[in-house]
Amino acid sequence: MAGKIDDLPLAWLTPPEWAEQALSDVVALLNDHAHLERKAASNALSLLSQWPDANPPDEWVNTLTLIAKDEAEHLAIVTRLLARRGGELTRLHKNRYAADLRKEIRLGRGREELVDRLLISSLIELRSCERFHLLSEHAPDPELAKLYKSLWASEHGHYKVFLRLANKVMSPRRVKERWHELLETEARIVRSQPPGPSMHSGMAS
Amino acid sequence: MAGKIDDLPLAWLTPPEWAEQALSDVVALLNDHAHLERKAASNALSLLSQWPDANPPDEWVNTLTLIAKDEAEHLAIVTRLLARRGGELTRLHKNRYAADLRKEIRLGRGREELVDRLLISSLIELRSCERFHLLSEHAPDPELAKLYKSLWASEHGHYKVFLRLANKVMSPRRVKERWHELLETEARIVRSQPPGPSMHSGMAS
Repeated sequence: MAGKIDDLPLAWLTPPEWAEQALSDVVALLNDHAHLERKAASNALSLLSQWPDANPPDEWVNTLTLIAKDEAEHLAIVTRLLARRGGELTRLHKNRYAADLRKEIRLGRGREELVDRLLISSLIELRSCERFHLLSEHAPDPELAKLYKSLWASEHGHYKVFLRLANKVMSPRRVKERWHELLETEARIVRSQPPGPSMHSGMAS
Repeated sequence: MAGKIDDLPLAWLTPPEWAEQALSDVVALLNDHAHLERKAASNALSLLSQWPDANPPDEWVNTLTLIAKDEAEHLAIVTRLLARRGGELTRLHKNRYAADLRKEIRLGRGREELVDRLLISSLIELRSCERFHLLSEHAPDPELAKLYKSLWASEHGHYKVFLRLANKVMSPRRVKERWHELLETEARIVRSQPPGPSMHSGMAS
């Protein structure tokens, strides 16, 4: 797994100390995580609803439905663990990280908008990947370590798949340019998040 | 299976001729069906997002996440079949049946709104159940018959589960009253739909 982690193309790598801080309140972290899985499932369904006819049709529809299914499955797993640890899904969930990323979407611009939505979905999975790896290495018990390890592989697949879909929508050259812009933006955004027990928190200064 | 079908508490039963008419354009029917599965998955996630803390917490969250997962799985199955039969998910999908039912929701009234949303979700599953049974008996080939049979059981489970959740939100007496009102309304609405190859179409006159 270590080799794979080194391959993640993030423009800024999270220091391992982040994991200690995120794991300081496991219930809060699991709650945040559950909401993110719910939002990831909704995001895949909403891409399908907004662009049902993107190309290539088979791959587009199959990929998004399978992602929605995976994320709903993760949601079930994470909420079960949350309940077993005495937590409950909270009413409100703020995710400034994703909200800040979505501000970068070139709205109303057809294929540009779709490419941005796919690349941002990919970036969120990519960052989650990195963080699941750190969490799996610092988890205080085997149950949590197992959860994070198993999710790592799945989200790693999703990050690649969103990137592949983007490359079908627009020329790979233009997608690559935009991807590098957004990688820089993502690094800036994640570093500016407040610290705390959430998947996309920043570092305590 | 016939015994179970007779137990469905619908206020109006669809005549078997409906199935012939719905199956006159299998690709259109599968497209409509795929969109309904997508909307059902979104509906479960959206209930969870709007009422994350309904009671009892464990049952609420587990049930809705499992429904979302089931529906995303059905969506994957139906879109694969649609593609194999030369169809593509269309950009637009209108579902006047569900839209008409949702007009009955007592919005902004807390538990009343939640009970209505659950009962209407249950009613949609209940009607789908009945229709899957008819489709399984009239399907022109074994692959379709198998699809409709397998979905029947799952949607039958969902209809009961939504009803059970509603009974946790409000007193069973009040839920029963509202359920009977909505059963009558649903019968009126489904009968007023235009005929055609869709899951909730009406009958040609």
